[in-house]
Amino acid sequence: MTYCVGLRLNRGLVFMSDTRTNAGVDNISTFRKMHSWCVPGERFITLLTAGNLATTQAVVSLLEERSKAQEERNPSILEQPSMFQVATLVGQTLREVIAHQSQNGQQADGPFRATLILGGQIDPGPTRLFMIYPEGNFIEASDDTPFFQIGETKYGRPILIRAYDPDMDFPEAIKLLLVSFDSTVKANLSVGLPFDVQTYAADSLDYGFQTRIEANDPYFHLISDGWGDALRDAFASLPRFDSGG
Amino acid sequence: MTYCVGLRLNRGLVFMSDTRTNAGVDNISTFRKMHSWCVPGERFITLLTAGNLATTQAVVSLLEERSKAQEERNPSILEQPSMFQVATLVGQTLREVIAHQSQNGQQADGPFRATLILGGQIDPGPTRLFMIYPEGNFIEASDDTPFFQIGETKYGRPILIRAYDPDMDFPEAIKLLLVSFDSTVKANLSVGLPFDVQTYAADSLDYGFQTRIEANDPYFHLISDGWGDALRDAFASLPRFDSGG
Repeated sequence: MTYCVGLRLNRGLVFMSDTRTNAGVDNISTFRKMHSWCVPGERFITLLTAGNLATTQAVVSLLEERSKAQEERNPSILEQPSMFQVATLVGQTLREVIAHQSQNGQQADGPFRATLILGGQIDPGPTRLFMIYPEGNFIEASDDTPFFQIGETKYGRPILIRAYDPDMDFPEAIKLLLVSFDSTVKANLSVGLPFDVQTYAADSLDYGFQTRIEANDPYFHLISDGWGDALRDAFASLPRFDSGG
Repeated sequence: MTYCVGLRLNRGLVFMSDTRTNAGVDNISTFRKMHSWCVPGERFITLLTAGNLATTQAVVSLLEERSKAQEERNPSILEQPSMFQVATLVGQTLREVIAHQSQNGQQADGPFRATLILGGQIDPGPTRLFMIYPEGNFIEASDDTPFFQIGETKYGRPILIRAYDPDMDFPEAIKLLLVSFDSTVKANLSVGLPFDVQTYAADSLDYGFQTRIEANDPYFHLISDGWGDALRDAFASLPRFDSGG
């Protein structure tokens, strides 16, 4: 399993992803699920991946090869003129990889499925955030739906719904994502630290803040422990149920 | 979908269930998923049901018919000598209903599955709480795992994990369950009010507090609105992420 979130704020984008992959509970590994590309002054793109690891690695490899090989530089996510075109290319690549892997084996395409979150900006366009489905099509975040989750989305969703605010600054948004990830990690063994974090300031057209939050990160433990206490205090602050007797 | 929880406290048991059933989003109905039986001074039993409605209604009908028809009063959940025997009987009835419905149709047993929570006390035994699987086997709540959820369990789980306390009294436990149900209702259309509530005080061997919380219940709205504010305050109370720059 996996847990990745892309948040759209008024001041830009924030991405967080876990790094645990597993094939059975006795076969776990750490893999990066966040990939960023940047041409300073021109474009910044981040991709989060959930689903079959062979599929998502193949998608990223294809996207990177296309962006590196001189002979075959078109189509490339570094050459597309807009985020919409990048999303179209990534979705097409994803669909092709799934179709190819399904052809070669006996199995239906179910096990090879993957879902992606794509965000970024290409000058002179606006900052955009997309969720890309295994079928290759995609939807875009809006004021009504300002964030996307992929993977194990349910445990961490209630706090996002309640505490998200489009005016948040990046440190607040990272704190929110850590609370959401903490609830998920506490409930699902297949989501685990370290977490990768990436921010993108709208119109900067450059790398923002990037870090990896390791399992022994003191701030994460402060949040994790503090959130338990804060939740219990919040719960205690609610009025008591009156059973009338 | 469905959401039901059975909590084991030091002072007894608390049950809550939603009432929404659906076959597609345009075919929704309200059905009771909580059923209680009591012989004052001797036994108290509550059953919560999630899964295929035809299956769970058949199980309850079989259990009730067996407890009513004079000729065929054995086996009856009102005659079993212990909660373990009741759980065995309920599990066996569930397995038989699923097997019977699967035989009659073209489909595998998947669509006919159901999962149950069973709790109560039979004199002179202790108060016990079980979760019963479609296969008819069951597990019992313990100090380490003091509550069971069935149906749409994920959204409402983090607050249960964080705020549950075995020393809670019944009004506190009902408040906790309402917060958990509120998070679930906010995220999944197929879980809905009204909610049924039942408490059982250990060793009372009688009905406890019973109520139905309707969609317009003022206390539920106080909790639902208050929880959003309390969560945001709790979140604000956590230390800020320091990106070091």
